[in-house]
This record gives sequence, C-alpha cells and structure tokens, in this order.
Amino acid sequence: MRAVDIVRKKRDAAELTRDEIEFLVEGAARGTIPDYQLSAWLMAVVWRGMTPAELASLTDAMLHSGRVLDFSSLAGAKVDKHSTGGVGDKTSLVIAPVAAAGGLRVPMISGRGLGHTGGTLDKLESIPGFNVNLSLAQFRGVLEKCGCALIGQTPEIAPADKKLYALRDVTATVESPFLISASIMSKKLAEGIDALVLDVKTGDGAFLKSESESERLARLMVDAGTRMGTRVVALITGMDQPLGRKVGNALEVEESLEVLSGGGPEDLRELCLELSAWMFVLGGRTKTIPEGKNLARETIATGRARDTFREVVRQQGGDAKVIDDPSRLPRAKSITRVKAPRTGIVTGTRCEEIGRASMMLGGGREREEDTVDPAVGLVIEKKIGDAVCAGEPLCTVHYNSQARLPEALALLDRCFQIDAGPPRQLPLVRKLIGAEAFG
Amino acid sequence: MRAVDIVRKKRDAAELTRDEIEFLVEGAARGTIPDYQLSAWLMAVVWRGMTPAELASLTDAMLHSGRVLDFSSLAGAKVDKHSTGGVGDKTSLVIAPVAAAGGLRVPMISGRGLGHTGGTLDKLESIPGFNVNLSLAQFRGVLEKCGCALIGQTPEIAPADKKLYALRDVTATVESPFLISASIMSKKLAEGIDALVLDVKTGDGAFLKSESESERLARLMVDAGTRMGTRVVALITGMDQPLGRKVGNALEVEESLEVLSGGGPEDLRELCLELSAWMFVLGGRTKTIPEGKNLARETIATGRARDTFREVVRQQGGDAKVIDDPSRLPRAKSITRVKAPRTGIVTGTRCEEIGRASMMLGGGREREEDTVDPAVGLVIEKKIGDAVCAGEPLCTVHYNSQARLPEALALLDRCFQIDAGPPRQLPLVRKLIGAEAFG
Repeated sequence: MRAVDIVRKKRDAAELTRDEIEFLVEGAARGTIPDYQLSAWLMAVVWRGMTPAELASLTDAMLHSGRVLDFSSLAGAKVDKHSTGGVGDKTSLVIAPVAAAGGLRVPMISGRGLGHTGGTLDKLESIPGFNVNLSLAQFRGVLEKCGCALIGQTPEIAPADKKLYALRDVTATVESPFLISASIMSKKLAEGIDALVLDVKTGDGAFLKSESESERLARLMVDAGTRMGTRVVALITGMDQPLGRKVGNALEVEESLEVLSGGGPEDLRELCLELSAWMFVLGGRTKTIPEGKNLARETIATGRARDTFREVVRQQGGDAKVIDDPSRLPRAKSITRVKAPRTGIVTGTRCEEIGRASMMLGGGREREEDTVDPAVGLVIEKKIGDAVCAGEPLCTVHYNSQARLPEALALLDRCFQIDAGPPRQLPLVRKLIGAEAFG
Repeated sequence: MRAVDIVRKKRDAAELTRDEIEFLVEGAARGTIPDYQLSAWLMAVVWRGMTPAELASLTDAMLHSGRVLDFSSLAGAKVDKHSTGGVGDKTSLVIAPVAAAGGLRVPMISGRGLGHTGGTLDKLESIPGFNVNLSLAQFRGVLEKCGCALIGQTPEIAPADKKLYALRDVTATVESPFLISASIMSKKLAEGIDALVLDVKTGDGAFLKSESESERLARLMVDAGTRMGTRVVALITGMDQPLGRKVGNALEVEESLEVLSGGGPEDLRELCLELSAWMFVLGGRTKTIPEGKNLARETIATGRARDTFREVVRQQGGDAKVIDDPSRLPRAKSITRVKAPRTGIVTGTRCEEIGRASMMLGGGREREEDTVDPAVGLVIEKKIGDAVCAGEPLCTVHYNSQARLPEALALLDRCFQIDAGPPRQLPLVRKLIGAEAFG
C-alpha cells in the first residue's frame, strides 16, 4: 500500500477502504508516512468529505491508535460531556461535579483554549496548584474517590489525533466536519464511557457559525458514537453572545462557583441544568429530562456538587479554599470599562471578537505555544436584550499589561450593537440531535 | 504573511494575490515553507483551480525563482518545441536539428521519462558518450556553434519548479492543468526563447486522455506564454497509438535518424514537418505553414539537418559515427514477438500499456530513481488500420532480462484490438490553439 495512491483515490472522490484508512492513521501515529502526504490527504478530505463507512473507519482507527480506558469495574454509569467550544463556556466546571454528585462517573479529558475560545484546562489551572497532568492511574484514583476527575490529553490516548490535529492546525484543514468528528469522538470514546452528551455551539462565537453546519457535525458525532455502542445525544446551543457574564480563566472559575452555590447568570445555570439532565437520562439515573434537571438542582441546593468540586480540587493538588473564598483566585491588577456610546437596547454582540479581545489581554492563546494569564478577562455587564444608557458600562476589562490593551479596547468598542429595534433573541438550546432514542 | 492563511484562502476558493503566490514560490525554492503546507496548498489548487491572474503570477514567480537565460546576442530567432509526453515520441531529436538547419536557434532543455512515457534525455543518452549535463556556458557554446543544443534541467533554472514537482509527484497533485502549465511554461520561458511550439498529446497514451482536457491545458499554456510576450502556438495531437514504430531509447534514436535521412514512418515524419513548420513561422523564417514544411523537407533532403545533428552529438561528447551507422547504438540481446491471435484489422491499441510494457523491460522508469536500459524496447509491426493474419507479429520485443518479460508480454497480448470493423482513425493533428495570431 502506498500513501500517494490513497491520497489520489480520495482526491478522485473514491471511497477509501478500512485498510487504507488504518494504513494512514497508523502511519501518522508511528511517523512512517511523511507529513506532506498526510496534509495532502487532509486537504482532499476537506474537499471530498467522507462516507459514513470511511468516517467510522477513521474514528475507529484513531481511537485504537492508543489506549482505550476501561472503568467497567467502577460502579455507576460513566458519562461525559463535550463542548465544541465557545466564549465564556465554563459548563464543564459545573457539570462534572453535579453529575458526579448525582451518581454518575465523569472521566473528563479536556483541552486548552485556542484563538477566541477558552479551554477547560486553562480555567482549572487558574486555581492555584491544580494539576491537570495526572497519570492514568491517578486519574482513575480521583474518579473513584470523587466521581469525577478532570485532566488534559495524555500521550497514551489517541496519539494519531494528536499528530493529525497538529498538522491540520498549520495546513488550514481544521474545518472539516468529518475530521472534527473523528478527532472529538476518537478521544471521547477512548475514555471508556457509556454515554456522552455533546454541546455543539452555533453562532458567531462558535467554531461553526451556521446552525446547519453545527447540526451536520452533531449528526456525524452522534452517528459515530452510536455505531460504537455509546449512547450519544447532541444539543445545538447558541453562541451569539458569551455564555454567562464572565470571560477569562479565573473569572470563569468564579462564575462556575456562583452556579455551584445556587446563583450565577440564568443562561449559564440553565444550560448546566439541561446538559446535566441529559447526562442523568443517558446514564440511567433519571427517566426524564425534568427529573434530571431536578436531580441536578438538588445536587446544587444540598451543596453536594460544591463538595464534590472541592474534593476534586484537593485531590488534584489545587487550593480547595478557593471554593469557599474565590478571592483567592488570581486577580488582574487593573480594570477599565467599555462604555455605551448611546442609549438603546443591546440587540446583538460580536461574540467571536469578544473572545479575541480576551485573548489579546492574555486570557487566551493566539498560537498553541503561547502562555495564558489566568487573571485577565472580561465581565459582560449588558447582555442581549438589556437596555443601556449612554455612558453606562457594557463590559469591564480586567488587565495586567498595557501591551495589547488599546487593540482589545478598540475591538470591544465594536462588539456591542445598540439600537432601538428589538433584539434578536433565540432560545439557548436550538435543537436536539439523537434524542429520539432516549424518549 | 503566513503560509497557513494562504492555504486557507485557496481552500475557500478566494483569489490569491501576486504577493501571496510569490511568498509561497520563494518559500518553496528557499525551503522556508514546510512541505506539509506546500502540499496542502497544492491539493487546494487541484481542488479550486486558478484564475488567469493567479496562474500568471505562479508562472512568473516560478520562472524568476532561478536564472532566466538570455541569448539575445546570438543571431536568429530562438525557438523551442515542447511535448507533454507520449509513447514513441522522438520528434525533438528530429526537430531540433531541422529547425537549426533552417536558421533558427533551438536551446532545448528536456526531461527524463517517467511511467509509460519516454524522455528526450534518456533517448539522447543511448548514444554512447552523449552528455546532457552541460554547464550553461557549454550549452550556449553548442547552441552558438550548431544552432541547437539539447540538455537536461539545470539547478539554476526554475528551482521552485524542481521542488514543487517533486512534492506533487508524491502527493497526487500532478494532475492539475494549472500546475502543469506553470511547471512547463516557467521552465520553457526561462530558456530565453522568442517563440515556442507546444505539442499537447491527447488520447490513451497521453498524460491527459480527453481532447477537452488537453485543449484546456493548451489554452492555459498559450495564454501564459502570450502574456509574457512569447509567441506560442499549441498543436493538439493524437496519442492513440505509439508515434512511429519504435518505442525504447536506442530504438527511437534509430528511428529519428531514419526521418533525418528522408525515411521513417509516415506519422512521425509528418508530425516532425508540421511542428518544424510552426517553429519556422513563429520564428519568422517562413510566412506560411506550407512554406515551413518545404523548408523542413529541404533541410532533410540536403542532409543539412543530419549534419547538424551529427555535429551536436560530437559537441556534446557523443559517438558521432552513430549518425551514419546506427548499429553502433546499444542493442538488446534477445528478441521475441507478440503474434496476432486472429486475422482481422488492427482497430485500436492500448497505447499507455504499450508504454508500460516498454518500461517493464527496463526502457523506462517506474520511479524517478530507477535506471534505464537504453537497448530494450518494442517495434510496432502493425499500426491502427493495418490488416493482420493470425500468427503474424504485432510487435517485436527487444529485451535483455527475463525478470519482467512475462509480465510485459502478458500486457502486450492485450494491447492490440483486432476485429473486422473499420478502425477508429483520427487525424494526428486534432486542433491548433493560438494559431489565429499567426495567420
């Protein structure tokens, strides 16, 4: 078998066999196929797409390029949640302890932020001492003790994805729903989970801007998981403005703790309840979504979810006192405000640019190798639908360095649309994909 | 400027600027852009194609990635011919001395054979001692003395093409008419010529099988050359069967000498006259094609073309006695014949497979690094339209090694269609592209 022939076949829109796809994926993982052939193949996939059989083979080959975890000896259904990423999306920090406190096991392996979107690992690391780099044995230990554990990608899991993702990043081949689906699902299915709830973001602040694209990706992932015998449902949720009010790593931990303490902004709280409810239904803890939401509410009201999170932080080396005293989180030295230029209604935001502004302050990464400042970020003072008077703050900017502050402020000045007209307000959960199977 | 952004732009079907294309081409030539980004871009070009402005920029950037020769101090129009490659196509060996003997200067830089097609350099090297690796100063010297010189690609000429071609070869991105056009035209225009006659092959034995594809490529090349101020015309010529009767390096030199001596098979002789006539018209030696053909015939009839070729061989270190005594060329040790299984008319041939059979005998290269046996090859005994009796030879196989002989013979057994029906006989020259400009 020769890589060039497989590339040619894909280029000519023919369907690759399972053997051919395994040959490429193994070659990627072992380094026996040169990058230039892999990247030509990746671009041909962006061009030609994949058949369901090809995607199944790709997902499977990537999943089996490394270790597949097995938590079957631990009691309780193993359920995870994955989000395609957005601005201010800190649901994982709420959901993992809520689901664990509700009787599920959540072996969550997350990623870092890139570009305008944040990453769960960066948020967790803003808690002093928190260690996301556990060995798989330690991961299992925390999972066993707390019901959930939150770590970063390990070299043992889906190494082919690590290789291919790095290549996609530099060859403009990230944006293929097939490659995205295989990348996400191979890593998630390697967690040894029974069920998975997917939060596929849509809108300006999402990776996929249109609902139809988001839905297409959601269907590919639900199909891939289902074919592998995992219960999967996907929620298409709006990312037309940041989720909640806080954007930036420590700020987002703070807001997660608000939700875990029974407060927090409504949109964030609601989405956490909805996603947790789906985890409970898929994991067999409750029969219906309303029952699932009630269970989630109960874990928060009783403080059990918060206790779980406190224990996870402690087990993973973090400063557990943060849970009860968020002022222990890193804080930026200075703040400034972006003010409304006129009176009116906030009818829309440029959500991606809000994320980019936070990145410019140091809250995110322009390139993978950049480091992140945990303290900086934004607090959105006015959300879509809010009335605002000229001169009132639209958002508060937390910053440590002047370096890119003017650039970030100039961007933020353009991010809020204020006019007389009614706002374009859509429900946060737009659509459910794969939910039929679970009543 | 970042390569990944340029790749993304092309992927999204946007038009690249001249600066962006120059950035890529320079990066390829200097090695500052990694292969994996170049190959992703190449695949995106195969996918999205190029606008006329992009192709002009690409051709120009590749042309100027190295030295551009200047023969303006030599008297006479500088005119070359280029063929897209076929089976048995030895016209260059006839045309270069004919055109030179007719008063043109032919600075011909050629390539090697790959796959089923032969290459001028391999043919020339079957003449004992012939050196195709002249320095540019030596090249100029032979051109000045003989009116033509025949060498291989030098590292000074279009180094970006060398790099990109090697990458295209292993990433299934060879078959883009835009990339083919830029590759050919950048090298040809770097020869410092005033005019160029293109022989774009079409049919089973050609690189491009359909006439519409061949015509498309021809138009791109004619446009590219014209835009650069070079007079260019393209002939679309049939490659449904080998050109002439002989396939294989020394065998093709032998057949070229037959034509230069006033004989040779009709199709080969006619095409040589036609191409030479276009060179004479474009180079201003004659006004019309009939006059050009007459001039070409005259250079042959008077022996001047043959004398020119003899002198070129001598100047380039080859055994000049070969011209008058072709038995000095290498000869294969053994011959065998492929015989007609039944009586009938040869109605068609599988021309590409005839080329592949010759390659299997050692006459061509499967991979670029293979070496070539100058002596082996085929003599086609029956051409399309010929009547044949069962048991009569269809072709004679000249071989030195038994290694792949059975495979080659099995292939050849399937290469000749013999039946009662009338043959599909098309004119050799199918179409002229760009000829309007030259009356």
